[in-house]
Amino acid sequence: MTDRGVAAFVGLGVMGYPMAGHLANAGFRMKVYNRTQEKADRWAREYGGKAQPSPADAARGADWVMTCVGNDDDLRAVVLGEEGVFAGMKVGATLVDHTTTSAIVARELAAEAARHGFGFIDAPVSGGQAGAENGVLTIMAGGDEEVFNSVEPVLRSYGRTIVRMGEAGSGQLTKMVNQICIAGLVQGLAEGLNFAMKAGLDAKRAAEVMSGGAAQSWQMDNRAATMVDGKFDFGFAVDWMRKDLGICLDEAERNGARLPVAEMVDRFYADVQEKGGNRFDTSSLILNLAADSDISQDET
Amino acid sequence: MTDRGVAAFVGLGVMGYPMAGHLANAGFRMKVYNRTQEKADRWAREYGGKAQPSPADAARGADWVMTCVGNDDDLRAVVLGEEGVFAGMKVGATLVDHTTTSAIVARELAAEAARHGFGFIDAPVSGGQAGAENGVLTIMAGGDEEVFNSVEPVLRSYGRTIVRMGEAGSGQLTKMVNQICIAGLVQGLAEGLNFAMKAGLDAKRAAEVMSGGAAQSWQMDNRAATMVDGKFDFGFAVDWMRKDLGICLDEAERNGARLPVAEMVDRFYADVQEKGGNRFDTSSLILNLAADSDISQDET
Repeated sequence: MTDRGVAAFVGLGVMGYPMAGHLANAGFRMKVYNRTQEKADRWAREYGGKAQPSPADAARGADWVMTCVGNDDDLRAVVLGEEGVFAGMKVGATLVDHTTTSAIVARELAAEAARHGFGFIDAPVSGGQAGAENGVLTIMAGGDEEVFNSVEPVLRSYGRTIVRMGEAGSGQLTKMVNQICIAGLVQGLAEGLNFAMKAGLDAKRAAEVMSGGAAQSWQMDNRAATMVDGKFDFGFAVDWMRKDLGICLDEAERNGARLPVAEMVDRFYADVQEKGGNRFDTSSLILNLAADSDISQDET
Repeated sequence: MTDRGVAAFVGLGVMGYPMAGHLANAGFRMKVYNRTQEKADRWAREYGGKAQPSPADAARGADWVMTCVGNDDDLRAVVLGEEGVFAGMKVGATLVDHTTTSAIVARELAAEAARHGFGFIDAPVSGGQAGAENGVLTIMAGGDEEVFNSVEPVLRSYGRTIVRMGEAGSGQLTKMVNQICIAGLVQGLAEGLNFAMKAGLDAKRAAEVMSGGAAQSWQMDNRAATMVDGKFDFGFAVDWMRKDLGICLDEAERNGARLPVAEMVDRFYADVQEKGGNRFDTSSLILNLAADSDISQDET
């Protein structure tokens, strides 16, 4: 295997773990860090890299540093903290952040990176756990064009569609657009399927029929049957969706975009949380519509 | 061309006109009726059938009678009126109604047809004008299974996906599900694209990127670019969508299904109408989100 240089990965969650694995398989010498060290040790055993005691240690000597953590605050901590990535990175290295965050923190880190002589790309992903595992993620990137061009071949390790949308923050803004579209779409699908059941139709069959036409969506193709069955353990959790919608609503307050349905759907996700569905996937919106919500699901 | 018997078509609008044409091309001897006679004459010149002075005259001697008119009242008039279809139909013939109506009128006509010894299938379609012209409509059918089986080969003339969803009214209920899904979906897409523009992104590019993932939809693939361009002359009109959503909301009141977003989107379509966008297509929801709505579109 060709040595492609040193890559660090900080945050080995359901997304980061397989993404870092793809980098290892692609020939990068890996240094990994995870808040829960056991996971980093497990990763190192599986892929042969090195688990590091801090983000700074992971970043030290790396040509590329990837982060994939929880939210704005987590990201600031692992990047700007005393033992953070920036404390270890070498001049000329590039940080690619795969966390879904506000555009504000992306611009903040881009500015801070520039001050240190680092590159920075905000690069949230879509495609879920399966996309990460299969290395076919969509990567929405923002940042300097030259820096993006240099990092794009690295991201090919786990990305299929990799697009630079503009300056720092543009990746995050594009991810917000994605989540806003999904909010209305999934609620519409939930209302349709619930109506179908109430009307005595075979709702799965209805979804199959509709899939050939103007109501078709990825969600309909992949989630309608499981929604009808009341199975909500297929990935992206309500807690995370609420975090993302919160970011969208905050940004909309700044840019003046009206989001009446996204706002409403955010409240509906709050209702799912109140019923204990924090870890259910986003298709669980249908639970709010059922007469007697049965949420006796396994929380996976 | 094999003679496949006599078919009558009542209602030669943007859908009915090409649908009747496909029946002619498939070898049926055609009798057509349209409220505006000129259109029926034009159709007869193009396809060689016979324009009739009333629905009853069109239905007389026909093995199959198709209707595709405006709404419940129009349908009752052309079917049950003094000069209506049932006044001319022969025993054993089948009426297939392609209008989008309430399930109530579908059940009413099914009962009335049975009393006369006619077959009846409610069979609303999706796929729009293009689907009708290309003969690739999705047909959602309800009614007696034997009758459906006998008429299915006839519907193949312009239908690609033809599914019997259950007893009389089931086709209409399935079409309602379709429109409910579209309502949330298009509003979500509109909010996303409007947000993208407000955020300074290339919104078309964002749609291209998102199309590979969980936010994908037929609407995103086919309408995002035109929505961004403010072009709303691509078919299904706001006036018709409001008619359909009215049917959905009425039915939901009966079956108890909650439709919070469909209800909201119905009001948003009313806002588009108030701005003069009655003939705009359903993607015009984005106009409600723009700061200074520019609706100086050609009303096609």
